[in-house]
Amino acid sequence: MSISVGVLGATGLVGQRLLVRLENHPQFDVVAIAASEDRIGEPFEGSVPWRIDEPRPTSFDHLTFDKAAPGELTGDPPLVLSALPGSVATETEPAFAEAGVIVCSNASPLRMAEDVPLVIPEVNADHLSLIDEQRRSRGWDGAIIKNPNCMTTTIALPFAGLSDLGLDRATIVTMQAISGAGTGGVFGIDIVDNVLPDIPGEAPKLATEPRKLLGTVTAGQLTQHPISIDAACHRVPVLDGHFATCFVELDEAYPPSQVRAAIEGLEGVNLPSAPAQPITVIDEPRRPQPRIDRDLGAGMGVAVGPISVEQHRVSFSCLAHNTIRGAAGACLIAAEAAVDDGYLD
Amino acid sequence: MSISVGVLGATGLVGQRLLVRLENHPQFDVVAIAASEDRIGEPFEGSVPWRIDEPRPTSFDHLTFDKAAPGELTGDPPLVLSALPGSVATETEPAFAEAGVIVCSNASPLRMAEDVPLVIPEVNADHLSLIDEQRRSRGWDGAIIKNPNCMTTTIALPFAGLSDLGLDRATIVTMQAISGAGTGGVFGIDIVDNVLPDIPGEAPKLATEPRKLLGTVTAGQLTQHPISIDAACHRVPVLDGHFATCFVELDEAYPPSQVRAAIEGLEGVNLPSAPAQPITVIDEPRRPQPRIDRDLGAGMGVAVGPISVEQHRVSFSCLAHNTIRGAAGACLIAAEAAVDDGYLD
Amino acid sequence: MSISVGVLGATGLVGQRLLVRLENHPQFDVVAIAASEDRIGEPFEGSVPWRIDEPRPTSFDHLTFDKAAPGELTGDPPLVLSALPGSVATETEPAFAEAGVIVCSNASPLRMAEDVPLVIPEVNADHLSLIDEQRRSRGWDGAIIKNPNCMTTTIALPFAGLSDLGLDRATIVTMQAISGAGTGGVFGIDIVDNVLPDIPGEAPKLATEPRKLLGTVTAGQLTQHPISIDAACHRVPVLDGHFATCFVELDEAYPPSQVRAAIEGLEGVNLPSAPAQPITVIDEPRRPQPRIDRDLGAGMGVAVGPISVEQHRVSFSCLAHNTIRGAAGACLIAAEAAVDDGYLD
Amino acid sequence: MSISVGVLGATGLVGQRLLVRLENHPQFDVVAIAASEDRIGEPFEGSVPWRIDEPRPTSFDHLTFDKAAPGELTGDPPLVLSALPGSVATETEPAFAEAGVIVCSNASPLRMAEDVPLVIPEVNADHLSLIDEQRRSRGWDGAIIKNPNCMTTTIALPFAGLSDLGLDRATIVTMQAISGAGTGGVFGIDIVDNVLPDIPGEAPKLATEPRKLLGTVTAGQLTQHPISIDAACHRVPVLDGHFATCFVELDEAYPPSQVRAAIEGLEGVNLPSAPAQPITVIDEPRRPQPRIDRDLGAGMGVAVGPISVEQHRVSFSCLAHNTIRGAAGACLIAAEAAVDDGYLD
Repeated sequence: MSISVGVLGATGLVGQRLLVRLENHPQFDVVAIAASEDRIGEPFEGSVPWRIDEPRPTSFDHLTFDKAAPGELTGDPPLVLSALPGSVATETEPAFAEAGVIVCSNASPLRMAEDVPLVIPEVNADHLSLIDEQRRSRGWDGAIIKNPNCMTTTIALPFAGLSDLGLDRATIVTMQAISGAGTGGVFGIDIVDNVLPDIPGEAPKLATEPRKLLGTVTAGQLTQHPISIDAACHRVPVLDGHFATCFVELDEAYPPSQVRAAIEGLEGVNLPSAPAQPITVIDEPRRPQPRIDRDLGAGMGVAVGPISVEQHRVSFSCLAHNTIRGAAGACLIAAEAAVDDGYLD
Repeated sequence: MSISVGVLGATGLVGQRLLVRLENHPQFDVVAIAASEDRIGEPFEGSVPWRIDEPRPTSFDHLTFDKAAPGELTGDPPLVLSALPGSVATETEPAFAEAGVIVCSNASPLRMAEDVPLVIPEVNADHLSLIDEQRRSRGWDGAIIKNPNCMTTTIALPFAGLSDLGLDRATIVTMQAISGAGTGGVFGIDIVDNVLPDIPGEAPKLATEPRKLLGTVTAGQLTQHPISIDAACHRVPVLDGHFATCFVELDEAYPPSQVRAAIEGLEGVNLPSAPAQPITVIDEPRRPQPRIDRDLGAGMGVAVGPISVEQHRVSFSCLAHNTIRGAAGACLIAAEAAVDDGYLD
Repeated sequence: MSISVGVLGATGLVGQRLLVRLENHPQFDVVAIAASEDRIGEPFEGSVPWRIDEPRPTSFDHLTFDKAAPGELTGDPPLVLSALPGSVATETEPAFAEAGVIVCSNASPLRMAEDVPLVIPEVNADHLSLIDEQRRSRGWDGAIIKNPNCMTTTIALPFAGLSDLGLDRATIVTMQAISGAGTGGVFGIDIVDNVLPDIPGEAPKLATEPRKLLGTVTAGQLTQHPISIDAACHRVPVLDGHFATCFVELDEAYPPSQVRAAIEGLEGVNLPSAPAQPITVIDEPRRPQPRIDRDLGAGMGVAVGPISVEQHRVSFSCLAHNTIRGAAGACLIAAEAAVDDGYLD
Repeated sequence: MSISVGVLGATGLVGQRLLVRLENHPQFDVVAIAASEDRIGEPFEGSVPWRIDEPRPTSFDHLTFDKAAPGELTGDPPLVLSALPGSVATETEPAFAEAGVIVCSNASPLRMAEDVPLVIPEVNADHLSLIDEQRRSRGWDGAIIKNPNCMTTTIALPFAGLSDLGLDRATIVTMQAISGAGTGGVFGIDIVDNVLPDIPGEAPKLATEPRKLLGTVTAGQLTQHPISIDAACHRVPVLDGHFATCFVELDEAYPPSQVRAAIEGLEGVNLPSAPAQPITVIDEPRRPQPRIDRDLGAGMGVAVGPISVEQHRVSFSCLAHNTIRGAAGACLIAAEAAVDDGYLD
C-alpha cells in the first residue's frame, strides 16, 4: 500500500530533510512538491541550492513545483506534509483540510488550538483522537495535525518520561542551532564568534506547548498539564542540534535510579521513521554534544546527559537534531501515526 | 576648518565603520545621514541594530535619516561619503555630482570609468587629477571619486611596492571575511564549518582594478598597467579581515632583500586617517592571521607575511581589515586626499 | 610614584592581556616577567606566539624571562601579578608571600581560604582587611590577594547590586568563551560547530565563590552570604566573552524599576583600571552579545540584558570579557585596590 | 575469507574513522588495536573520548589496547593498518615489516623512499610491485605500503585524470580542515574566526608526493613525473574536508570538453571501500563546499568544481574528506589493493 503525498514548502531546510526521508519511504509516495509563487513550474532538479549535509535525492527530479493550494497539487494527494512558513500556513493549511486533505504540519499556527492534535507519537499518540472533534466543530473532511516546535520536542521526550513522577516546574535554558531559523534566518555576521540571546517567540512556545503535549484527552476534551516552565532561548554557532539544560522540580523526592529509569524508559513506537529507542542517556560528563550526538538514531533520537538528582530537584542536558527529530522527522512520524490510526484509510 | 559631510548608506556595516571614524574627525563634520526609504525620518539612535565590534558613536543621536538624494540632505553638505549598495549608487551618485557635490564612494559602479579616479592615496593620489577631465566631459560641478574593491585594496598596496621591479603576471587566491558581503550577504547556515568558493563578481574586479590603480595618468589620460591577473575568491568563516595568497612573476629576477624592501618601503601619506606605515612585513611563518593582524594600524595597515623569492617568482600572503582599510577607511582617506588637493576649498 | 611589578605566567592568554594593560600603567612598572622553566633566559620579543587581538606591547622587549620564584625576579619587585596555572600557583604564590611580596593572583588555589581576600573592588574592597589576619596566622610579611573565577566575576557584579534586596537562591546557566580554558585548553576539533557541556570544576566555583564575595568581614572574620546557587556551565564557539543567563529568587517581591535600579546602580570605584560604570543595562531584546558587548568599558564593563521581574523572581543575561574583566583586569584592579589601601606603601 | 588485521594508533581521529570502516568489512577482521603506552591494557569501550560524527562501533568493545610492536598484538595479524604519528611510525612500522607483517600506513615517514609504494589505487595500483624490490633490498618478509598525505590525495585524483594531457606545472592553494592536524593539533583559540597560513611541513609534501604518484614503475624502478608544483597551505575553520584551488599548466592547449572529460573520466577500481566514481564534477558555481560535499561517495569521492580552461591553462577547485578519502579510507583501500594483488595470500 502506498499513499500519495504532497510536500508543501519543499525548498527550505526542513523541506530538504523531508524529501530525503521520503525518497525510499515504505508507505508514502511523493507525487507533488509545492513552493512559493516564484518557483511554480520550475523543475526540482537544479531549482534551489542544496544546503543540508545529506545528499540531494534524485528521485524527484521529474517533479515541478506546484502552487501550495488545494486542487493545485499534481495527483491530488490525500495527505500533505507541510514545512510552510507560519505566515503562509495560517491560510493554506485550513484550506487543504477543508478540501478533505490530511495536513501534517511543522508550522506553528494552530498548534495550541484545542481541537488540533499536537503530537509526538512516543508521548501522546492518543491525542490524534482530537481529529474527530476538529472535524465536527470545523466541518472539515480533512484534518490538521501538528508537531511541536523543534526545541519543545527535544525537552518534551525526557519530560514525558518524568511525568509519571509528577512534574511541578521547570527552568529551561537552550542553546539552539542556526538551522532552526531557516535558510536566511541568521546572518553569518551575527553568529560567528557570538551568542544571540532571546530567540523571538521561542520562550513562550517552550512554556506552553509541553503543557498541551503532556496533557490528557478524554472524550475529545483536552486538559493541559499543570507544569510551570521558565525558558530562556539562545542561538549559538552550531549548524544542527538543539541543546538544552533543564532544571526540573518534581512533586516529591525520588531516588536517582528511579528518575533515570523514568527518563530512559520512555517507550518507542512501531512506526517506520521512529527510532528504536527514543531517549539515550549518555553517562559521560561532557555529553551530549551537538556535533557528535545529533545524528543519534538517524537523527530521531534524543540524547540526555548525566542526570543529577537532589531530593525533588532533577537536572540534565538534552539534545536532538532540530531539523530531523525537531521538524521533518517529527512531521513525518506524526503522519505515520495518523496512518497507523486509520485516518488515511 | 571643518567641512560638512553627509554619509550615504549609513546603516550597513561599512556605514557603521564610517560613522565611528567620523565621530571625532579633525576635518569633517557629519551633518546628514541617509538611508533607504523605509528609514527616512527615523532617528539614528536605536534605529538599526549595531553590528560591529567598535562602540556605537553617540554624537549622531540627534540626526535623523534623510533621503539619499541631492537637495534632501540636512545642511546641504559639499561632500558625501557613500557606502551605498551598487544598485542604488548607479543613479544616486552621479545625481549628487551633477548637483555640485564631491562624492567619495565605496560602491563599485563607475570604478573602471576612464574619467573617474580610483584612488588609494599611498598608491596613486595623482589620479585625482582625472576629476578635471571628468568635470569637463560630464559637465559636472561636483565629482565622483572611487576607492577600490576591499580585496583589491589589500593586494594593491604590496603590488604597488613591487611595481618598480616590473610586474608581469599574478595568481591570487583569496580567503575573504563574511563582513565583505554586507549585513545579510552570507547566511549563517552557509558559512559555519564551510568554505564558499567563487564570490560572485569578485574575481573580475581583482583582475581589472589593479591595472587601473597601478596605471599612469598623463594629461588627463589614463594608461593601464599591463599586469595579467588570475584570481580565485573564497568566503571563509572569518568575521573581518580579507586574506590573500599571491604568486607574482616579475619582469626579471631580483634578490630577496630587494623584493622585500620594495614591498615594505611603500611610503605612507600624510592624511589624518592614513596609517604611519602602510605595509608591515611580519617575518613569522604562521602570519598574518585575520584575528590577530586585522587591526594593525587601527585597521588601516596591510600585513604581509614572509616573502618567498625564487628568481623572478615572488610569493607572499597579505591581509587587511576589509571594512576599514578595504572600505570605510579607504573611502575616508580618498576624501582626505581630495581635501589635501584642494578640491573642497 | 611608581611601584615595581613582576608578572608571573606572562606567556599565556591572561599574561598577554596583563602586559598590554601594564605597558603604560600610571602606578606600576614591570621590571620582571616569569615563565615556565623551558623559557627562562629567553627574551620577551619573539618568545611566544602572540594570540590576543590587542597589539603586542614592545616596551618589554628588553626583558628576559625569569624563574617564577622569590629571589629570582629581576629587580626584586614588592608586588607580583600572577597568571600562573593553579598547579604551579599552589606552591609558588605562598613562597612569594612568605618572602614579603604582595601577590595578586588570578589562580584558583586559596580563593576560598578564610584568611585570603577574594576581591572585586566594586563589590567587597573591604575584604582586603583579611590581609592582617592572613599575616598574623601565617607569619607572612607579604600577602596573597585573589580575584575570583572569570565566570563568577561576571555574575557577581549584578548579584552584588541585587544583594540589598535579599538574595535567596539562583540558577545560573553559562555559555563560556574558549579563551577561558587557556591557550590549549579547548581543541579546535572539539569546539567548532559544537557546545561542550560541563566545564570541569567550573560549577562548584560558581556555587561557592559568590557566597564569599557577597559575605561580610567583621573584625577579621568572614561570614559567607547564604545564597544557594545551582550552576551548569558550557563552552561555546566564542573566542572571548563569558555569557550567563541567571534566574534569581529574592527574599521578597520588588517592583521591576527597583530591581533594575539595584543592578545598574552598583557604584564604580576610583581606580586606574576600573570602568566608570561597572554595569550597563542594555534594554534591547537581543543583547548582550559576546562579539559586540565584550569590549564595553575597555573590556572592564559588565553588560546586562533586559531584566524580567515576576514577583520575587528576577531573570536576566549578563556578559563580560573573561580574560579582561574576568582575569587580567580583575587581578590588576585588585592590585590597584591594595595600593589604594596602603598595602604597598 | 577473512584476514586478521591490527590497527595501530586506534585512538586518534584517523584511528576512529578506520574502526568505523572496519566494523563490517567484507575482508578484514580486527583482532588487535594498539595505542600509546599509557593505554595498554585498557578496554576499547570508554577508553577515549569519541570525537567523530559517525557512531562509535561497539563490535570492538571486547578488545583491549596492545602495545604497537611486533609480537605484542593479540592474534598476531599478518596485516596492520597504521594511523601512528610520524615520530612513532619511523621505528615501529619497519619493525613490523621485518617481522613479516604487511603494513599499510597513513604516516609520512618513508613515503618518498624509492622502494616503498605510495599508492592511490585509482591512480597507481601498479606501484605495489615495488614491494618485491623493497623486500629484496631490505630483506623483509613483510612490507610497507603508504598512502599519500591527505591534501595530496585530494589533488592527485584530478591531476591523474589530467596527466594524459601532459602536466607541466601547477600552483595549488589549499584551505584545510582542522581534523587534518589530529585531535590536539589546532587549538580552538587559534582557529575560530581565523585563517592560519603555512601549515608546517605541508607544502613540501604537496610539491613532491604527486611526482611520485604520477610517476611510472618499470622493472621495479620508479621514475618520477616531471610536474613542478608550487603550493601554499592554510588551515581554515572547517572540521572536515580539505579544499584546494588549482591552477594547472598543460603541455599544450586543449578544448574545455576534453579537459573535463579527462578529469571526470578517471576510472574507479573494484575494491570494497572504493567509490563507484572517484571524481564528480559539480558544475554549480559555488561548489564544492566542505560541509555539503565532503561526504560524497561515503567520504571516498573527490568533488571538483567548475573547470575553467584558457588555452593550456586549467583551473578548478577540488575537495575531499581528509580523514576518510585522505587518510583512513586511503589506507584501507591501499590494503584492499594489496589483497587484490595477492600480497596477503
